[in-house]
Amino acid sequence: MEPGNVLSSGASVAAVLPAGGSGERLGGATPKQFCALLGRPLISYTVRALERINWISDIVVAVSLENIETMKSIIEKYGHKRITVVEGGMTRHRSIFNGLKIFPESKLSSCPLQKPEVVIIHDAVRPFVEEDTLLKVVLAAKEHGAAGAIRPLVSTVVASSADGSLDHSLERSRYRASEMPQAFLFDIIYQAYHQCTDYDLDYGTECLHLALKYCKTNAKLIEGSPDLWKVTYKWDLYAAESVIKDTLSQQVCVTTDMKEDAVQLGFLLQETLKNEVKQVKGISVFLCKNDSRLQNIFLGQCYNFICINAKKSDIKEAQQLVDKLEKARISVLHPVVLISVHLNVSENMSFSNGMEELAWIKEFAREVKKKNILVYGLLIHYNKDDPKLQETINSAAAIISALIKDRNPELIGQLLVA
Amino acid sequence: MEPGNVLSSGASVAAVLPAGGSGERLGGATPKQFCALLGRPLISYTVRALERINWISDIVVAVSLENIETMKSIIEKYGHKRITVVEGGMTRHRSIFNGLKIFPESKLSSCPLQKPEVVIIHDAVRPFVEEDTLLKVVLAAKEHGAAGAIRPLVSTVVASSADGSLDHSLERSRYRASEMPQAFLFDIIYQAYHQCTDYDLDYGTECLHLALKYCKTNAKLIEGSPDLWKVTYKWDLYAAESVIKDTLSQQVCVTTDMKEDAVQLGFLLQETLKNEVKQVKGISVFLCKNDSRLQNIFLGQCYNFICINAKKSDIKEAQQLVDKLEKARISVLHPVVLISVHLNVSENMSFSNGMEELAWIKEFAREVKKKNILVYGLLIHYNKDDPKLQETINSAAAIISALIKDRNPELIGQLLVA
Ligand SMILES: [Mg+2]
Ligand SMILES: [Mg+2]
Repeated sequence: MEPGNVLSSGASVAAVLPAGGSGERLGGATPKQFCALLGRPLISYTVRALERINWISDIVVAVSLENIETMKSIIEKYGHKRITVVEGGMTRHRSIFNGLKIFPESKLSSCPLQKPEVVIIHDAVRPFVEEDTLLKVVLAAKEHGAAGAIRPLVSTVVASSADGSLDHSLERSRYRASEMPQAFLFDIIYQAYHQCTDYDLDYGTECLHLALKYCKTNAKLIEGSPDLWKVTYKWDLYAAESVIKDTLSQQVCVTTDMKEDAVQLGFLLQETLKNEVKQVKGISVFLCKNDSRLQNIFLGQCYNFICINAKKSDIKEAQQLVDKLEKARISVLHPVVLISVHLNVSENMSFSNGMEELAWIKEFAREVKKKNILVYGLLIHYNKDDPKLQETINSAAAIISALIKDRNPELIGQLLVA
Repeated sequence: MEPGNVLSSGASVAAVLPAGGSGERLGGATPKQFCALLGRPLISYTVRALERINWISDIVVAVSLENIETMKSIIEKYGHKRITVVEGGMTRHRSIFNGLKIFPESKLSSCPLQKPEVVIIHDAVRPFVEEDTLLKVVLAAKEHGAAGAIRPLVSTVVASSADGSLDHSLERSRYRASEMPQAFLFDIIYQAYHQCTDYDLDYGTECLHLALKYCKTNAKLIEGSPDLWKVTYKWDLYAAESVIKDTLSQQVCVTTDMKEDAVQLGFLLQETLKNEVKQVKGISVFLCKNDSRLQNIFLGQCYNFICINAKKSDIKEAQQLVDKLEKARISVLHPVVLISVHLNVSENMSFSNGMEELAWIKEFAREVKKKNILVYGLLIHYNKDDPKLQETINSAAAIISALIKDRNPELIGQLLVA
């Protein structure tokens, strides 16, 4: 199923994200959609998941009055496009309805938004939704009027009697959990919201139910992937952060200067890193001469860079890379890891001559952290005839892999030793 | 509600943990109950959650034939007590039934197990169950014959028609998710399993349903806490690990030698750490002279230790602490973090004279890692008249807090600089 199908069929698609919730289940003061994952609010991840899809023309986010400025500053800071912020209502349904009302009913309106044929409704706290799932619900909504993602039930569902005893349990295989995203022909869901009662708006939560009750539209149910999972509890935030870190640590790019030692070490390190990281790319020339290849690596969503310098105390290469990362805006959405590797080729095992780097690495790391780039130093004893060389390389690869997977901002500027 | 109530009422209580599942939802080869969290299998955490409760007399774990040896080695390695391993069946219900059958029907039997009055059934993949919840279901089972923990539904539950369209959605407030633990009068659940059909045993999953259907026992439903959460997907493993790390990083103990500088630094560090860690304890004397206080700290479930040495290159204190940790078996269940802090009091900012430690810290860390103790080095420039001293202490506290929260085994033996 190609995304082009949606466009070629002429359906215009918009999305509404109700994000007015208070996050009381998390037990914290910050509503969960505004909790930070690797420094960035959860809702920005969800917005990004929709924004990257070019056949979604507009994204309407409904937030409570006191969070409108916060939401606007998130959009500004992370450069989100095609977003309209509206004031949410007291309940989930009222927030969605407010989001729908922003679209003008006639095309004569001066409003820059156009009423879409199909509208997606998604949760602000389901950041991992895939394009494929969105496409499936949109196409099913176009055909059936309404569609929603479902998942198997994880627990048996029980009904209790008035005294708190088990009345009956439902046969698990006959039921499904209704998840998000859902999609509707705009006119159907809009009409449903117009016709429904205050009781529906205040106590209901299920859009599919409104379409059925008020527009006689039986939604098509679409089996969703586990990624539809909703951030509900505090540990879901931990889990979401781990999932994001996992995704960011899939690729690493190793750059080396032209010195023989650096090139050789770079080669060995790349080979060993392949056991730890899914995709390892190497560039064995000065960065400044290789802009197009580096741009391709940036485009390939690489967020981890290893600079190998034969010369110690050399900040130049790392600084050049930082400049390029900044220019390409790579670290706007995700923290980038930059590990500056230095070779210690001397026989002196006191390590003391590795230490001059420490001062500049600390200073440099503190400076570029402001750009969301996390710099760590790594000293590798390199002697190509050392029988223990592979052991040292293994140790270096393990440290690199740990730094990439953790992205710990408190350990920046440290000089680790392989 | 005191645990004693159970004992004083004379109810004997045992638990059955069905753990025969294949973990297919995780998408991995290892069944989820055997996946490692901080190096220890998930099921060991769940067993521990039951084992620590002294009014549970026996814990029966039902695992598939091919995992019986694995399970026995887990019990051996982590020193679990009062555990009986039985072979599970092809389905969840058959595994539970096998677990129940191990209890002899008469007291004349030579079997060391005694038939309990109440049996708890719990999932191997719900490691965070609280004593309070277990007690509530046991007492309710004693009174009503059966009881089970429930939680509010997170999603709306829908029924689909034959063509995959929405038939109807359930009113969320009328239903609950049935969770674990559950508890039963032994005779009731045993009879239910004896009377139920092969279809029940092969396709059912809900014990409360069997008690209702075959013994006319309406289980009491008990509102459970969010901690009952079940490890179902890969990210639940991430989340569970984060929850465990969170728990382990609540307390830190700072030990110092008697040198003036170390004592002063220890005091400053303790005060600053209080902003990062819930509970900070200090011992400002030689460890060897203070055994009873240290034993109390061990008993208080402290898994993080900071040794401050005025003398550099001194391994003695850290080694003594390791010996005591090992003797008290503190690191059997959880990795212990030991941060060896060294003072650099010289004016020489080249840091080079801090480097002699590196060699021994690496060696020492590698050695004690085998005992599940993670050693990191931390060098602090200490000059009590330095106007930037508090800044240095803040940096040290941030690094310590990060090391404790991460428990990263790949970074052991590194010498970090505050
Ligand atoms: Mg269940
Ligand atoms: Mg829902």
